[in-house]
Amino acid sequence: MNEKQIVGEKAAEYVKDGMIVGLGTGSTVFYTIKKLGEMVNQGLSIKGIPTSIQTETLARELKIPLVNFSEVDCIDVAIDGADEIDSDLNLIKGGGGALLREKIIAKAANTFIVVADSTKIVESLGSFPLPVEVVPFGYEMTKKQIIQLGIEPTLRQVNNHPYKTDNGNYIFDCEISSIFHASELEKGLNMIPGVVENGLFVKMVDAVITLDSKKDIVIKKIN
Amino acid sequence: MNEKQIVGEKAAEYVKDGMIVGLGTGSTVFYTIKKLGEMVNQGLSIKGIPTSIQTETLARELKIPLVNFSEVDCIDVAIDGADEIDSDLNLIKGGGGALLREKIIAKAANTFIVVADSTKIVESLGSFPLPVEVVPFGYEMTKKQIIQLGIEPTLRQVNNHPYKTDNGNYIFDCEISSIFHASELEKGLNMIPGVVENGLFVKMVDAVITLDSKKDIVIKKIN
Repeated sequence: MNEKQIVGEKAAEYVKDGMIVGLGTGSTVFYTIKKLGEMVNQGLSIKGIPTSIQTETLARELKIPLVNFSEVDCIDVAIDGADEIDSDLNLIKGGGGALLREKIIAKAANTFIVVADSTKIVESLGSFPLPVEVVPFGYEMTKKQIIQLGIEPTLRQVNNHPYKTDNGNYIFDCEISSIFHASELEKGLNMIPGVVENGLFVKMVDAVITLDSKKDIVIKKIN
Repeated sequence: MNEKQIVGEKAAEYVKDGMIVGLGTGSTVFYTIKKLGEMVNQGLSIKGIPTSIQTETLARELKIPLVNFSEVDCIDVAIDGADEIDSDLNLIKGGGGALLREKIIAKAANTFIVVADSTKIVESLGSFPLPVEVVPFGYEMTKKQIIQLGIEPTLRQVNNHPYKTDNGNYIFDCEISSIFHASELEKGLNMIPGVVENGLFVKMVDAVITLDSKKDIVIKKIN
């Protein structure tokens, strides 16, 4: 088994009968969802809320029952990947472009579990460019406001056109040498009119499932 | 002349030759834009950036030249209305639904002028429901997060369907008895994943043009 599969499948242990489960997006949580599909097939009763159209398609293939937000009062557990994880268990997410939906679901969940191979664990965030989702209207002005925070934003493009999120917005990938004050940066970005959300997940994680240098499973928690 | 026309036309005095001008939306700034149309007709050279499709249409009819954000480095002056203005010149805006575009343009402007008849001046904000723009995805969860701030949100509807902004988002009109800490509330709302923007404009205004009880023009400034 590769690293992603080991940690991805481990996370499925957090899912119990009767739970509403937020289903993340990416190559590691893919294995969690596949495992959940097996468990459902063996009789586990859960309902999933997917963070992307890609995950929704996968869950349907695996016959995991899905629900809409309007049908649930809360999410028991959400499981997702991350692009970077620091020692305070703060995250950068959104390389795949689904940061807003992922953040809405992580925030709504009673327990938020992150699955990540060991390459995602870093001393401090910032080597991975921080994704910032912005409304298309006036994005040139929004870019100028982002630059004033000391950040270098690059508009994400696909085939020479701006990449569009599932919500119809654009993404700036932001070069930041090292993020020392994740909480302040998250607030500073969200206070810019035109910024919809950013990929910093600060103090949201309950546990990170990863591997140590000996390739043993480690579950990191903040106290 | 009615109150709206008096203060609306007065604001046009802030516009000088060569300026890039943010053009607000509403029944008071309507008179500013009409006046600017006359001035352009008499030789004034300006370029406008409209905050709504409605204002864009009006400006085109009046032959005010328009530019895109991509063509300008900054906005010299933006002129707009407000739904409520408190004694610190903080605003509630967005009754008309254009709050996000209005806030992007107000933030980008070197000088932000508000025009308002005397009924808009209040002791403290909050009698007018605060508009909060949210992404459609997961808006039921976003509503729950807003309620946790002690606010009562009502989804704005048109013909029994959710009202959609120019950006394709929904609006919650939020009942708040009285807003004592506008800055904290603005931050609290913007930190909720799913909230795109809210109608609180805190410490953004350079001058408010209104009328006093004798119906004389008053220009209110901070310091």
